[in-house]
Amino acid sequence: MNVAITGGGGFLGRRLADLLLTRPEVGRIRLVDSSPIAPFAEDGRIERMQANLTTPGAAAGVVDGADVIFHLAAVVSGQAEAEFDLGMGVNLDATRSLLEAARQSRRTPRFVFASSLAVFGPPLPEIVTDETAVHPRSSYGVQKAIGELLVSDFGRRGFVDGRAVRLPTVCVRPGRPNAAASSFVSGIIREPLSGLGANCPVGPDLELWLSSPKTAVANLAHAAFIPGGSLGENRILNLPGITVSVGQMIACLEQTAGKEASARITFTPDASVNRIVSSWPARFDVSRALALGFSRDPDFGNLIADYLESGAAKTRQP
Amino acid sequence: MNVAITGGGGFLGRRLADLLLTRPEVGRIRLVDSSPIAPFAEDGRIERMQANLTTPGAAAGVVDGADVIFHLAAVVSGQAEAEFDLGMGVNLDATRSLLEAARQSRRTPRFVFASSLAVFGPPLPEIVTDETAVHPRSSYGVQKAIGELLVSDFGRRGFVDGRAVRLPTVCVRPGRPNAAASSFVSGIIREPLSGLGANCPVGPDLELWLSSPKTAVANLAHAAFIPGGSLGENRILNLPGITVSVGQMIACLEQTAGKEASARITFTPDASVNRIVSSWPARFDVSRALALGFSRDPDFGNLIADYLESGAAKTRQP
Repeated sequence: MNVAITGGGGFLGRRLADLLLTRPEVGRIRLVDSSPIAPFAEDGRIERMQANLTTPGAAAGVVDGADVIFHLAAVVSGQAEAEFDLGMGVNLDATRSLLEAARQSRRTPRFVFASSLAVFGPPLPEIVTDETAVHPRSSYGVQKAIGELLVSDFGRRGFVDGRAVRLPTVCVRPGRPNAAASSFVSGIIREPLSGLGANCPVGPDLELWLSSPKTAVANLAHAAFIPGGSLGENRILNLPGITVSVGQMIACLEQTAGKEASARITFTPDASVNRIVSSWPARFDVSRALALGFSRDPDFGNLIADYLESGAAKTRQP
Repeated sequence: MNVAITGGGGFLGRRLADLLLTRPEVGRIRLVDSSPIAPFAEDGRIERMQANLTTPGAAAGVVDGADVIFHLAAVVSGQAEAEFDLGMGVNLDATRSLLEAARQSRRTPRFVFASSLAVFGPPLPEIVTDETAVHPRSSYGVQKAIGELLVSDFGRRGFVDGRAVRLPTVCVRPGRPNAAASSFVSGIIREPLSGLGANCPVGPDLELWLSSPKTAVANLAHAAFIPGGSLGENRILNLPGITVSVGQMIACLEQTAGKEASARITFTPDASVNRIVSSWPARFDVSRALALGFSRDPDFGNLIADYLESGAAKTRQP
């Protein structure tokens, strides 16, 4: 089983590849990214490919020979809001190009699309389910919702074996703050753990729907390995997460790393971040996903532990 | 107020133009169609433009100077299912091109997008509302759902003043059967009224959600004239219709035109039509639309009366 991962040079893509390397049925793993991909794993199954998916023809090379395609590449929410055309190009056009290339390959590859809870927005029910209407309040959310519809239709028509999974906000992401509206969600944990300051642009009562990278990656892999028949006709589903308030996150940080860690957080509101992030739901009924064998983190402490165990914290010193 | 109507050479486009000509605030009405447009109304305000919206650059000419754009042009459901690439080109790409041209015009025109109940599919709740998740079971429905999302986002960003309205199945359409999966809905009334045979490919218990052309056109116009502020943030709404079973339709035809009319209907099932049409909902809560001043037909007899009064029946003789 040959695999291609777009956004394969990114944090989630590399962790997904790590996981897939442990599966004996996985053959070649093609990591695709628009930036050069750092060397990765001493394993002959890894192939690194630098490609810009918005370039005509690039998608054919990406999907060539692939039995499973994980499409993770995206322009993040804050950047898609600031640079509309870039977001449309990468989040919509490149997704369509990949689907079209997969169709042309005539292999009916499994196509796992990393969607996002950002497809949802107000008015929201108390509990979001797979039957909740999407009302995205960001261009990123709109582009992801369109991607889901395309994956569904290419799947229904038999061009691909499609699966669109909506990731919770992933926390703790390693590295530096990025242009995602949710960047602070990782930042307020990661930066203080490294002795750095971090700003929290939202109030402590805001609730979030979170997943550790480890669980997110396990669920992406599961989305590829689950038989199509068990998914039924609706190939779009909300992945499990946990509901945590910003205040609870900070209290948990304090339990782990002491008051000196939480004292590094400042609270300067940011209206544009707040508008996007507070439009996302934080409470879901994911019984369908759980019944299908997708997993979830036990609690927020697990998310901090995953970060500390990953070794990423050690490389992030002030 | 200058208007452009795509699909302006079509049946609904021409009836919409007729209605708009009665409004004193309406100036130039540009009818745009991919086919040559038959001469129309002795009125200097009418401009006919033949243009293929899938041709690069065509959209700019369509929206040039327009304060209101009605985007009705579409490849119908059956054809979009049979010719996937054509449907994607017209229903998705041309919609996006028009929105992009409207954005580039920097006039923030009102943009009325004719969407469809075909965005919905199973699993369906008992009653569909504006908060029901779309699960299109046709490429046409997917393309319309994507158009709605684009109209919403271009609207939210201030590129256009967007309004996406989901039309019920329009009945009775004049003319000849077409490639819409719903073509029979008009056919089983129109053809027998002209002494012609018509096949009904679905069972008599199938319920439909219907609107007369007169009401559909009045609601499209209302969608353009209603102030944006009264619509709020959710610019996608289900238009009013009436719930009628195929059996009730045929009984009503019989009341109007006698048993010899209904006897002209045959009942040969068509699985592909049935699959699409039976995936559409027939019961809606449209209280939001009604509160906003959109209208609905009183009963199915009104739909037959609208057809007979339109004069279209006279031109459709065996």
